Amino acid sequence: MTNKLYFQCPLNRDKDAAFSAIVKESKQVGYYALPEQDISSLLAYENSIDDDVEAIAVIGIGGSSLGAKAIYEFLKPVTKMKRKLYFFESTDPININALLQKLTLQKTHFLVISKSGTTVETFSIYKYIYSLQSDPLAYTFITDPNSPLEKYAQTIQAKVLHLPDNVGGRFSVLSVVGLTPLLLGGVNIQALLNGALSTKKSFFEAGYMQETLLKKAAYYAKNHARYPINCLFAYCESLKYFCEWYVQLWGESLGKHQKHSAFHVGLTPIGLIGPKDQHSFLQLIMQGTRDKSVTFIKVEDFQDDLRIPDITLPHLESLDTLNALSFSELINMQCDSVMEALLEQKDIPLDSISIPKVDAYHIGALMYYYELLTSLVGELIDIDTYDQPGVEAGKIILKTKLTQKEQK
Amino acid sequence: MTNKLYFQCPLNRDKDAAFSAIVKESKQVGYYALPEQDISSLLAYENSIDDDVEAIAVIGIGGSSLGAKAIYEFLKPVTKMKRKLYFFESTDPININALLQKLTLQKTHFLVISKSGTTVETFSIYKYIYSLQSDPLAYTFITDPNSPLEKYAQTIQAKVLHLPDNVGGRFSVLSVVGLTPLLLGGVNIQALLNGALSTKKSFFEAGYMQETLLKKAAYYAKNHARYPINCLFAYCESLKYFCEWYVQLWGESLGKHQKHSAFHVGLTPIGLIGPKDQHSFLQLIMQGTRDKSVTFIKVEDFQDDLRIPDITLPHLESLDTLNALSFSELINMQCDSVMEALLEQKDIPLDSISIPKVDAYHIGALMYYYELLTSLVGELIDIDTYDQPGVEAGKIILKTKLTQKEQK
Repeated sequence: MTNKLYFQCPLNRDKDAAFSAIVKESKQVGYYALPEQDISSLLAYENSIDDDVEAIAVIGIGGSSLGAKAIYEFLKPVTKMKRKLYFFESTDPININALLQKLTLQKTHFLVISKSGTTVETFSIYKYIYSLQSDPLAYTFITDPNSPLEKYAQTIQAKVLHLPDNVGGRFSVLSVVGLTPLLLGGVNIQALLNGALSTKKSFFEAGYMQETLLKKAAYYAKNHARYPINCLFAYCESLKYFCEWYVQLWGESLGKHQKHSAFHVGLTPIGLIGPKDQHSFLQLIMQGTRDKSVTFIKVEDFQDDLRIPDITLPHLESLDTLNALSFSELINMQCDSVMEALLEQKDIPLDSISIPKVDAYHIGALMYYYELLTSLVGELIDIDTYDQPGVEAGKIILKTKLTQKEQK
Repeated sequence: MTNKLYFQCPLNRDKDAAFSAIVKESKQVGYYALPEQDISSLLAYENSIDDDVEAIAVIGIGGSSLGAKAIYEFLKPVTKMKRKLYFFESTDPININALLQKLTLQKTHFLVISKSGTTVETFSIYKYIYSLQSDPLAYTFITDPNSPLEKYAQTIQAKVLHLPDNVGGRFSVLSVVGLTPLLLGGVNIQALLNGALSTKKSFFEAGYMQETLLKKAAYYAKNHARYPINCLFAYCESLKYFCEWYVQLWGESLGKHQKHSAFHVGLTPIGLIGPKDQHSFLQLIMQGTRDKSVTFIKVEDFQDDLRIPDITLPHLESLDTLNALSFSELINMQCDSVMEALLEQKDIPLDSISIPKVDAYHIGALMYYYELLTSLVGELIDIDTYDQPGVEAGKIILKTKLTQKEQK
């Protein structure tokens, strides 16, 4: 994985300050240590799940589902999966019914994921599904040690896996939260962790990623008022859910009150997929307000030799320049062309990330890269990257509404 | 469909100016007249498609696919569709292969949609599929009259449908571009048009929508520098692709150079789905930079009585307030709670749209509402809403790259 920056960002004392802060933080914040974790107990757990189980259904929302979904959807088209994964992440009744129709309940194992064990969406769905399938062997609960949810799981004698200490939902993809469904689905989770570890080492041990990430984070932080919107433009259809994971990670981490001021700050994430969004969002980037940076993501080799046939269509001869080209080449030429067109504008900060191919190792490396970048930018714009106090007010209002309704 | 604005926008002379401009424009710009179109020839065309055809595959990108996809995905979970719809809209080879695996070529009818007939994505995919299925009866081409594509279609004696005059891609959902795949799929397209017509009449004939749309557009336009990001937060999982359609409509229409200045202007669209994105983007809206307006979309009645069972889980008694609630009620209470929490902030412009239920009539009404709103805002921020000159530069660079490659 490489990352080329097309903007200048001279590093000076900031570099040392940000890097030192991250080194210090990495001893307390849980996600940093995940690439080195020992997965042997998880592999043992996997053996306890019956081979008859055909599908894994995650009941979880936000950080409890987005990471696994991103990786699963990225790898699915090129991987022989062992089981299908489904994600229950909405209280929309039409959606719940549509998902249930795809499952055979007797052949599904449910992973109920909630840090606190009191997430409204997760437990309204769980209660409903439990009314259809009350066998405790059909469930594994993933939660904090000693949470009310763990106590409940013990009461019904269901399996429990523990979240590691101090790993927030949106940084939990490489913990049991993301690894459990992926492992059961058939993803090589060790490769995923190895990829993440490669980014980690490169960053902490003064490799290629250290300079690159520090420069990029410093540029984003210094210009956060001028370029408050960050677009991720991925030329790979199956990175669609990776974009959703990125949106949560970036938005929920970086939209905050500052620590040392009353100011609201926030970098707004936008996920785009090329070439499709050339026909949608590109016009706005090219000619709209100059408030956006853009990061392109390319897959160097799709390892697929699908080619445009060498045929001429009468009256459409102008399209013959496409003939005999592989789609893998074409999509990358499209990405390069748009990038060059935007570079000509001079005032749109661009960078491009290349991953060599579609596999678990490289998505692991890419996700860890984004986690580090988020931590660095959070440090530099003076916020707490790991909390989310802004979502509490709505929860309290809902709780009041629910209580009032119950009393009626 | 109702739309409640939670911000103040006194109308004065602006109202007349914007409204008059739209009335004038509605005589030239093609999309305005689409709700009243006569669909009898399209119904006759439908009869020419064999009942053996099980799937409809759209080969098109951007405006040629997003509208039909939005409506299809919205209605699919609650409609007995006649045929499945697939959309080829990427040059990603992994995506093309994955889609082809879902189709039986002999039982698929392909709709090749391109206004000009020279879209790179559409024709690279078409050439490939044509090498697998060369029967001209398997194709219908939708294009401008007398385009090179129409001439090609005539050469191979395939069916052709014409785009109406002066209807741009992103405003084409209610033309043959969107109606053809939807009709073949089994959607009630007359209901769709009737819904659009209801919005149109309400707006042009001084109904409820006139005042509402003029106020909202004026507010967005006057505050476009202060609130350059517009979030659409839809509490309905199957509005996901509607959000993608909205992003194209809004972004590509409103991100421009001004007509009477050299300034770049642009309103950035963000599509969100509730309650999922309460666990992702909400933190950023609540505590991040005050650069966003938010429009909530609610479905009043999902017409689905799925209920949370009235059971108590040991140690999780605090969740009993959810008991016996229908999911339809719950998701709307979640939406109201978040809206109330945001209203307390005072400086986030909010409005809410309610559609009574999930059906063709109301999605038609909603889409036409957004088309009118886009036209109004475009008029008020002094841009050409209907062109997209910013996407040309990348196309020219690609063309050069392709020619150079061919000459090697």
